[in-house]
Amino acid sequence: MHRLWHFRLCPHSRAVRAALSEVGVSFSLVEERPWEWRQAFLALNPAGELPVLELADGPVLAGSYAISEFIAEEAAINPPPSSTAAPPPTLFPGNREQRAEVRRLVDWFLIKMQREVTRDVIQDRVYMRAIHGPGYHPDAAILEACRANLRYHLSYIGFLAYQRRWLAGDVMSFADLAAAAQLSCLDYLGEIAWSEYPHTKDWYARLKSRPTMRAMLAERVPGTPPPLHYTVLDF
Amino acid sequence: MHRLWHFRLCPHSRAVRAALSEVGVSFSLVEERPWEWRQAFLALNPAGELPVLELADGPVLAGSYAISEFIAEEAAINPPPSSTAAPPPTLFPGNREQRAEVRRLVDWFLIKMQREVTRDVIQDRVYMRAIHGPGYHPDAAILEACRANLRYHLSYIGFLAYQRRWLAGDVMSFADLAAAAQLSCLDYLGEIAWSEYPHTKDWYARLKSRPTMRAMLAERVPGTPPPLHYTVLDF
Repeated sequence: MHRLWHFRLCPHSRAVRAALSEVGVSFSLVEERPWEWRQAFLALNPAGELPVLELADGPVLAGSYAISEFIAEEAAINPPPSSTAAPPPTLFPGNREQRAEVRRLVDWFLIKMQREVTRDVIQDRVYMRAIHGPGYHPDAAILEACRANLRYHLSYIGFLAYQRRWLAGDVMSFADLAAAAQLSCLDYLGEIAWSEYPHTKDWYARLKSRPTMRAMLAERVPGTPPPLHYTVLDF
Repeated sequence: MHRLWHFRLCPHSRAVRAALSEVGVSFSLVEERPWEWRQAFLALNPAGELPVLELADGPVLAGSYAISEFIAEEAAINPPPSSTAAPPPTLFPGNREQRAEVRRLVDWFLIKMQREVTRDVIQDRVYMRAIHGPGYHPDAAILEACRANLRYHLSYIGFLAYQRRWLAGDVMSFADLAAAAQLSCLDYLGEIAWSEYPHTKDWYARLKSRPTMRAMLAERVPGTPPPLHYTVLDF
């Protein structure tokens, strides 16, 4: 079976976990604490970043970009056997232009939003706390800047979800999974004022009800409980 | 004809320019000054980032990820007519695992190296200078941190180039173009001590001699001349 190195509150790990589950690939999980920079993990991925997918037959794929495109190529090369059940979702659906729109938004959520919001929030509120203990106090100025940026991203998701059924078009894509991965980590930390973003909330409620998301939302980080609404579908 | 919005010292723009040229796609250039955050440009790409490719038949593709995969899909769908000439390079050559390795390295150079080195160097030495004039003094602490990180990236390129013929394997790929795009911008600014990295230098010399790179290396930024060795093939 494939093995996925991940961390519970890593948005890139969550995006790839959701992608693997949605397309029906089985895998086991190995948790990595990325702030420890373990030599054995750096041997798997010299970038020191999550996720890493070790395929059952040997090759190691590093990073959400390489892994998501690899999964998408497998689905294109080996379509699942036809059955009466609905086919699994495609990560990059549509024609070439539509796939480019999916990739534009994946880039937006996994790179731009990560850089402007999530990276520093998780670094300061999760990694640094794990390193320095519960007495660690996050940098208020950094968190304030991240929270200001977050408002813009939440509005943009709402704008897209209002204009389209899913973020990149008529059908769900990896762009939705990437955005939901970001929001689920921030929501765990109580960073999202859902009532101010009704369209974003409606879209996220649809994602939240999928089995692939529910499994992730059931996980907890010791010492850091999520807000009460975190796993509630009608939040 | 397709139109590419770019900036002369933007590594992502250079990577995509090189990719388009290498696979034989014709395009015209429109220069955008990304620090101006022009409304008309934000309408093309709300992320405000370069490059943006406006296709001749209308659709707009935003960002190096969407554009590079779009180009690669075109080459896969419409292979160029066979002739006696050698076929143009493929951006993501090899089998699925080899393509994943190309993508791991594209991520490394366009995201990780951009975040750890090039983004702040260009922000501080080019954008801020353009905004505030030649009297602007870059933040020495930021540049020092970037330069320390740069040594690690130059060593990693040398390590890869020594182990393999090209960075991702036996043939040139988009990983080489992405890394060369980063290094060419930093080299323009005199940031690279080539003599310390002989394998990196040998690999870059091969890239430098390609017509697609030579055209970019001929460009100048007014008020900021490059070092004398910048365009020299035997540097």
